Amino acid sequence: MTEQARSTAYRTLDSESLRGPIGDHADVRALLGGRPQDWQVREVGDGNLNLVFIVEGPEGSVCVKQALPYLRAAGPSWPMSPERAFFENAYYSAVAPYVGTLIPKIYHYDAGLYCTVMERLSPHIILRQGLIAGRRYPNLARDIGEYVARACFFTSDLAWPFERKMDGLALFAANKPPVRITVDLIFADPYFASPRNRHTSPQLDEAVAALRRDGPLKAAAARFGQKFLNEPQALVHGDLHSGSVMVTEGDTRVIDPEFAFYGPIGFDLGAFFGNLLLSWYSQPGHATRDDDRLGHGEWILEQASLFWETFRGRFLALWSGHGKGDAFPAALFSAPHDAAALRSAQDAFLDTLFADMLGFAACKMIRRLVGFAHVIDFDSIRDADLRGRCEASALAMARALLTHPEQFRSMAQVIDAIPRMTRRQAAR
Amino acid sequence: MTEQARSTAYRTLDSESLRGPIGDHADVRALLGGRPQDWQVREVGDGNLNLVFIVEGPEGSVCVKQALPYLRAAGPSWPMSPERAFFENAYYSAVAPYVGTLIPKIYHYDAGLYCTVMERLSPHIILRQGLIAGRRYPNLARDIGEYVARACFFTSDLAWPFERKMDGLALFAANKPPVRITVDLIFADPYFASPRNRHTSPQLDEAVAALRRDGPLKAAAARFGQKFLNEPQALVHGDLHSGSVMVTEGDTRVIDPEFAFYGPIGFDLGAFFGNLLLSWYSQPGHATRDDDRLGHGEWILEQASLFWETFRGRFLALWSGHGKGDAFPAALFSAPHDAAALRSAQDAFLDTLFADMLGFAACKMIRRLVGFAHVIDFDSIRDADLRGRCEASALAMARALLTHPEQFRSMAQVIDAIPRMTRRQAAR
Repeated sequence: MTEQARSTAYRTLDSESLRGPIGDHADVRALLGGRPQDWQVREVGDGNLNLVFIVEGPEGSVCVKQALPYLRAAGPSWPMSPERAFFENAYYSAVAPYVGTLIPKIYHYDAGLYCTVMERLSPHIILRQGLIAGRRYPNLARDIGEYVARACFFTSDLAWPFERKMDGLALFAANKPPVRITVDLIFADPYFASPRNRHTSPQLDEAVAALRRDGPLKAAAARFGQKFLNEPQALVHGDLHSGSVMVTEGDTRVIDPEFAFYGPIGFDLGAFFGNLLLSWYSQPGHATRDDDRLGHGEWILEQASLFWETFRGRFLALWSGHGKGDAFPAALFSAPHDAAALRSAQDAFLDTLFADMLGFAACKMIRRLVGFAHVIDFDSIRDADLRGRCEASALAMARALLTHPEQFRSMAQVIDAIPRMTRRQAAR
Repeated sequence: MTEQARSTAYRTLDSESLRGPIGDHADVRALLGGRPQDWQVREVGDGNLNLVFIVEGPEGSVCVKQALPYLRAAGPSWPMSPERAFFENAYYSAVAPYVGTLIPKIYHYDAGLYCTVMERLSPHIILRQGLIAGRRYPNLARDIGEYVARACFFTSDLAWPFERKMDGLALFAANKPPVRITVDLIFADPYFASPRNRHTSPQLDEAVAALRRDGPLKAAAARFGQKFLNEPQALVHGDLHSGSVMVTEGDTRVIDPEFAFYGPIGFDLGAFFGNLLLSWYSQPGHATRDDDRLGHGEWILEQASLFWETFRGRFLALWSGHGKGDAFPAALFSAPHDAAALRSAQDAFLDTLFADMLGFAACKMIRRLVGFAHVIDFDSIRDADLRGRCEASALAMARALLTHPEQFRSMAQVIDAIPRMTRRQAAR
């Protein structure tokens, strides 16, 4: 059967039925070695949206990811177009020239099956798992800071004539179902009594009720929701939390960009930053007799800071070296006496990205604490009282970030406030 | 010949060759009456981009507008796709349900000829001409304020689920050539020694040199240029100056939306506001022995203020009555105690639109004073010294708006500053 004929109709693959379509690719067959019927295949998906298979042959292995036509966490009752697999591949193609080995190698994309054959990352694990296990990754913060800087700068109007971004904007404007999920689950549901929400109860009942009565907080969240839909600064990953990063001690890879669209750069920054903070707040729940996790917490906050500083430095360096786009056109700032004004404008722009990062981080934290989809950083804490205390601290910080942005103008202010506010809350 | 066959190939129409394609439409033939060969046809286009014909028959008349494949003001050496005619029609279709008779009736759009048959507006004249002639239009400011409020609100995420805007975003993202003109001629060329620029010389030489050395001014203009490309808040007209409005004493119509795209609402606000200010600054050049134009100037400033206040009031009323979109979702603010927070967020949003209006107005003023395309408000002032004085005052105000936005937080501050700064400049 030809590849063409085999792929036309969408069908959900399983460990047997994927051997045919995968085996059709001579290069994948060569990479795996042996015969398709002898390959070891196992489904390992633990996310909300896809089937993920590891296929192992005598010579090597690949990862096969297929988009499901519904939200896996909810089952077929929540349909969702598998088209997002197309946009995942379009995102990888768009950023690949700039981010080097920070994404997996893509071998094939099957448009009919919404299925991607890609590099198997091994012995990588999901960053979120590593952080829960108390592991450290010395390159992580710099790698992701560099990643966001490069992926976003080179898909913005700072780097290229605007026509290029407008073409991308038109393409990714069709990736609506993931954006609908973000709009509903991040920027709406957590702030009212949606039946999709859940929280640690009764421990968080009071805090959640207070959150849903907090008009200024809801207005701030709504402003970030509006910003999410109204500032296509760059092609963003759209879901860059610690479950979308795979790591070894020395290697970092960004995966799962199916929520990709043109949006605010701060949304990617905030996803990663906010999930580092969630990890920090969950640490007491993972303490053992041998490890109180205080050192791990300190390390996590250092990484949060290093992530931002790396992003900031790299983004500014790219702007200075590759600013050939229509935004801040080079022709306006070519004389030596213009350098100071440009530098000041660049600093102001980075300040808005910093504020956006904090606001989006707060929104991402809140949705993981009181919304539909939670994170195992907290869910794996068995003791509900302990879990509730961790979550309440995180929730208080997120509220402060949204309602008192004037208190968080620098990274030092943020990093100082986190343990201080938690101590204060514990003393109550 | 069938309509289909006749329209396939693009060709520039003239007073004779348009009779065929127009006459193919039975309803247009009925409206005009008589035989096509007997119709009176004259070309009346005075803009930069199109042929415009008035076709008169014994029963009535229509206007026929055809997009040229080049920039008319520059000639065939500056090619420009006639596709913009398609987007002009797409814009009219998108806003027609909301703006009532503030746009002309569209009878037919011929996709092959990039040609629109529309209502002939008579005895309307171009607003810019009326303002130069010292005429007053009692409904104008309220009509255009209402127009921008309705056209922008109902194409924003405040009114509808975001998917609707994303579809529009994808469509209008293809209207790149007009956006390229805006990006180059408004946000770049005026700020450096582009060969396309001109200004009243030598009278403005010094002011223009100072403008092009002013780093903070250029950074401010560049920020608005970046905003223009990065904030698709609504479907904007894209060129809403006083040459895109036709008026009688009682009727107001918005025409020529071929620059339409999803952009910042402040861009339309600023286009109209900035061109009212340009008209104010040009008034001394049109004074006669019988009319010093001081009264007309006062009336113009009152209209500028009334335009904004109408827009603001109407936009807020639409938000309160029709806010069914994903931005600021109603579910978050349904309790009575949420009303204050929502109102405060609405005021803050309108404040950003006000600041955007002033910034974009300043950019639009500067490009008409020192860039490629000027306005007849000034060009028709024969005395170059007088013209230069008028233009220098306008230029000084535009620079102040861009570099000292903190001095212009309210309409009263703007309206007070205009004559005051001009008196101060005259006293030098």
